[in-house]
Amino acid sequence: MKASQFFISTLKEAPSDAEIVSHKLMMRAGLIKRLGAGIYNYMPMGLRVIRKVEHIIREEMNRAGAIELLMPIVQPAELWQETGRWDKMGPELLRVKDRHDRDFVIQPTSEEVITDIARQELRSYRQLPKNFYHIQTKFRDERRPRFGVMRGREFTMKDAYSFDRDLESARASYQTMYDAYVRIFQRMGLQFRAVAADTGAIGGQASHEFQVIADTGEDAIVYCEQSDYAANIELAEALPLIAERAAPAQPLAKTPTPGKSTCEDVAELLQLPLSQTVKSLVLATDEKNEAGEVVRTTVWLLLVRGDHELNEVKAGKIEGLKDGFRFATVAEIEEHFGCKPGYLGPIGLKKPVKVVADRTVANMSDFVCGANEADFHYTGVNWGRDLPEPDLVADIRNVVAGDPSPDGKGVLSIQRGIEVGHVFLLGTRYSKDMNATYLDESGKPQLLVMGCYGIGVTRILGAAIEQNHDERGIIWPDAIAPFRVVICPIGYDRSAEVKAAADRLHDQLADAGIDVMLDDRGERPGAMFADWELIGVPHRVVISDRGLKDGKVEYQGRRDSAATPLAADQVFDFLREKFLA
Amino acid sequence: MKASQFFISTLKEAPSDAEIVSHKLMMRAGLIKRLGAGIYNYMPMGLRVIRKVEHIIREEMNRAGAIELLMPIVQPAELWQETGRWDKMGPELLRVKDRHDRDFVIQPTSEEVITDIARQELRSYRQLPKNFYHIQTKFRDERRPRFGVMRGREFTMKDAYSFDRDLESARASYQTMYDAYVRIFQRMGLQFRAVAADTGAIGGQASHEFQVIADTGEDAIVYCEQSDYAANIELAEALPLIAERAAPAQPLAKTPTPGKSTCEDVAELLQLPLSQTVKSLVLATDEKNEAGEVVRTTVWLLLVRGDHELNEVKAGKIEGLKDGFRFATVAEIEEHFGCKPGYLGPIGLKKPVKVVADRTVANMSDFVCGANEADFHYTGVNWGRDLPEPDLVADIRNVVAGDPSPDGKGVLSIQRGIEVGHVFLLGTRYSKDMNATYLDESGKPQLLVMGCYGIGVTRILGAAIEQNHDERGIIWPDAIAPFRVVICPIGYDRSAEVKAAADRLHDQLADAGIDVMLDDRGERPGAMFADWELIGVPHRVVISDRGLKDGKVEYQGRRDSAATPLAADQVFDFLREKFLA
Repeated sequence: MKASQFFISTLKEAPSDAEIVSHKLMMRAGLIKRLGAGIYNYMPMGLRVIRKVEHIIREEMNRAGAIELLMPIVQPAELWQETGRWDKMGPELLRVKDRHDRDFVIQPTSEEVITDIARQELRSYRQLPKNFYHIQTKFRDERRPRFGVMRGREFTMKDAYSFDRDLESARASYQTMYDAYVRIFQRMGLQFRAVAADTGAIGGQASHEFQVIADTGEDAIVYCEQSDYAANIELAEALPLIAERAAPAQPLAKTPTPGKSTCEDVAELLQLPLSQTVKSLVLATDEKNEAGEVVRTTVWLLLVRGDHELNEVKAGKIEGLKDGFRFATVAEIEEHFGCKPGYLGPIGLKKPVKVVADRTVANMSDFVCGANEADFHYTGVNWGRDLPEPDLVADIRNVVAGDPSPDGKGVLSIQRGIEVGHVFLLGTRYSKDMNATYLDESGKPQLLVMGCYGIGVTRILGAAIEQNHDERGIIWPDAIAPFRVVICPIGYDRSAEVKAAADRLHDQLADAGIDVMLDDRGERPGAMFADWELIGVPHRVVISDRGLKDGKVEYQGRRDSAATPLAADQVFDFLREKFLA
Repeated sequence: MKASQFFISTLKEAPSDAEIVSHKLMMRAGLIKRLGAGIYNYMPMGLRVIRKVEHIIREEMNRAGAIELLMPIVQPAELWQETGRWDKMGPELLRVKDRHDRDFVIQPTSEEVITDIARQELRSYRQLPKNFYHIQTKFRDERRPRFGVMRGREFTMKDAYSFDRDLESARASYQTMYDAYVRIFQRMGLQFRAVAADTGAIGGQASHEFQVIADTGEDAIVYCEQSDYAANIELAEALPLIAERAAPAQPLAKTPTPGKSTCEDVAELLQLPLSQTVKSLVLATDEKNEAGEVVRTTVWLLLVRGDHELNEVKAGKIEGLKDGFRFATVAEIEEHFGCKPGYLGPIGLKKPVKVVADRTVANMSDFVCGANEADFHYTGVNWGRDLPEPDLVADIRNVVAGDPSPDGKGVLSIQRGIEVGHVFLLGTRYSKDMNATYLDESGKPQLLVMGCYGIGVTRILGAAIEQNHDERGIIWPDAIAPFRVVICPIGYDRSAEVKAAADRLHDQLADAGIDVMLDDRGERPGAMFADWELIGVPHRVVISDRGLKDGKVEYQGRRDSAATPLAADQVFDFLREKFLA
């Protein structure tokens, strides 16, 4: 490919609405062009990357026995009503009426349609297992689309759906997809981690996220260097950091802490470690009657150590909080604690409150907490002596780096990640709602056991860039670069020698099936190099009269600090060997 | 590929809503599955055909210098308002509001978005010409979707858009696309014809349709076997069939024709050739004031020979009818002709009427027409003698088979076709509305001159089947068959020899890059053969113990009436040579 036959459009400055580096670089390198909020044109340079990503996904999905089909973008509402998602999904589900006033959705995902296909087509156990996938445009009407392709509204996703006769077989299908995802992200040249994830409201059987490692990632990933433990922070189990509760050593004392309403401030004032303090968080749950009126409200006090954070996903699994909770209002807090937020604690409550202590808090002694009186804290607090044992002890905090790994094999580290894939063992959540059954050996109908498996195709571009860039631009992994090697001739129009050498190398590489770009635009060297460094082509060959005089060209990898001179007649072999490796 | 790793789902009977053969066969062969009215799932077998069609299109578009990108499906209404199509397009444009109540369209085509890209990106004459295309899902909310993928609502289209500095350059871009389309449909193995088409309301400079020949086609195609003249019937010029008007030979006579209100009936009654009669068609045009009220109505009488048909597209090009016409009401007809429809003619009008005669009618003598009196016709009518010359003589009829070719090189034939591609020299229709300009050599802004070029990707499946099928099923051209060759082993599970021979041939073909299917499902031979004949795989090899005993296998092309025995050890070479040819 020659630049004159392609479309290259780079920008010196990123538009002001681009907040993160991948968004900025994708705009500057001309990979995408904004059409509306969260809606992008994929320009020729960007589309090349998408096609390579799709190609790798397709090859590995096929290799894993999944079968490609294509489900429509515009889907009838009836199917979404069958599963209840028509009502459950909020305004992020884009709804549309056709000319006959019938309801449709612009698909954000395709569980309903594939289950509709399966209940018609998969009639016998002999047809199982089956795994269908498609690579299709999706739409999610995000309230605040941003970060370019990372949180866009229209995007491309590969979604696969497996159908099995029982949970055991479904687990095998799940593992097959898990393994395929590992190969997919490995082939893309991305540093990633598969982490156990919460199965959430869907209540499935198992779930893993595939996270591309990047400091700018939205998600926190927990892993153990001494073992293969890895989980999303929402799920990662926090063990008690104190094995056994020590006997009380201090007396209970009410201590003035004027204006010190945070654990950090109190610890500093009292010259105590933050880990000696306890944080109070007040939740509330409402019991409603059939008319939807609140008939009873329960207030909950959740206690985590001062240096820890509440994990709301874990809290949401506690009996009593499972069906939904909210943070308590100031009025409710004053009613139950007799005090405004900032000085709350479990001692001296005005009204009954359910007290839940984190596992670590439950084993603390001589700790500090609010005194339920403005500008006062208690010190030397001890369970049993100064207050009753908590109503419940549970894992309700986020792990922190250095925590023991739940598998007992080392300590936990935390890094940031960008979710690019998600595998989910659904079980019968959809097949039950849609009555998707097969006939077993005895001719009895049984619910199909499902898994679903997504990869954010367009999001991978953003994630790869967040992971691989420098101050000059993008650094694509070879496998998904828009072009693998760029030939930059200096004086292509002026020098017959340069032109001949550049054309020859271009043709050699192209004939060998290597994705090559020859920049014949006639740009000045500085501008030309800057363009290709911004665009992020991983390998560059510079051909100039000065070099050719000595029979040399210059090779530079995108991460190399300097160019390497190579014999002009050996550069093709050099590159071919590099790419075969 | 082995059948057990794929998804095959055939039906004995087509669903009752499938009206045409391609729709029936696509449903029966399991290529598509209905999700809603005009909305289909592309099942694995159908998607394979789509991918092959797309691959050919992509290769030829790239070869023609077009550059692929991808424009979104959900497009902001603002751009559609700029060109006026937001108002002009009726309910076939699917409109949707996002969560912030902003208007969007689900794209039926992308002129607006590509012009928006072009006006930002193509700033200088040095960047021209450029041609961008994408292959993307479209939606048109047809009032009555039917015929499967032929007139569906959601479909895949390749749409390309060229941008040039002037009309001359745009004509060259147009020709390049025309040539690419010829290659595309040739490579697909389809019998087709490129026909000149009407530029219609868009008012462009030139237009050709690519029509797949099929008796069931919706369109009539006119062509000349003695030359390369070809046009859509809407456009094909009808020459006068009578070179010069003969002198009157008969007297004018009012003849009773009771109950004979059609030319056919009158000709039969009077024992005259139909070509001696003249048909009267009454149109009306309304002149409106600024408030949209009708201030004046003009009635038009259009005359075509009794054996000819009015061509409304041609009529719509006449000065006075150009801005829109309608058929006159019975009241208007009675007011102007003093008679109900059925016995109308140009003699003895009650009120002024604009008389337009078809070229042939204008040269007729001694003809027959209605007498503007119920149950009476005039015979022996002659222009000038019995009535004034017509106000206008024009080409207002459809050509018929046997008419002289407008290029003077022979006679016209007519066949039916299915439109699968359309190239259109748009001119500045969109660039003017959207102010899409480039700077010329003198730094002056000039409007970009555009062309647009569509191919109905999914429609090609239907068209190919309408052209290529028999009573047993589809007969795919090699290039777009879901599989090129199917191996049907008889007793794959029972006979080690059969299994070994089938597996070996499968691997040989697969290794040679030939798209092969091995049917390892263990179906009975009759059912297995019927499936693959229905699906339409063009080449079949049957491997059985009985044949292998004599060292033979059986080859049969899908159009062959009988199988050919081949030496088992030569079948691979036989097929490879066949496919290389």
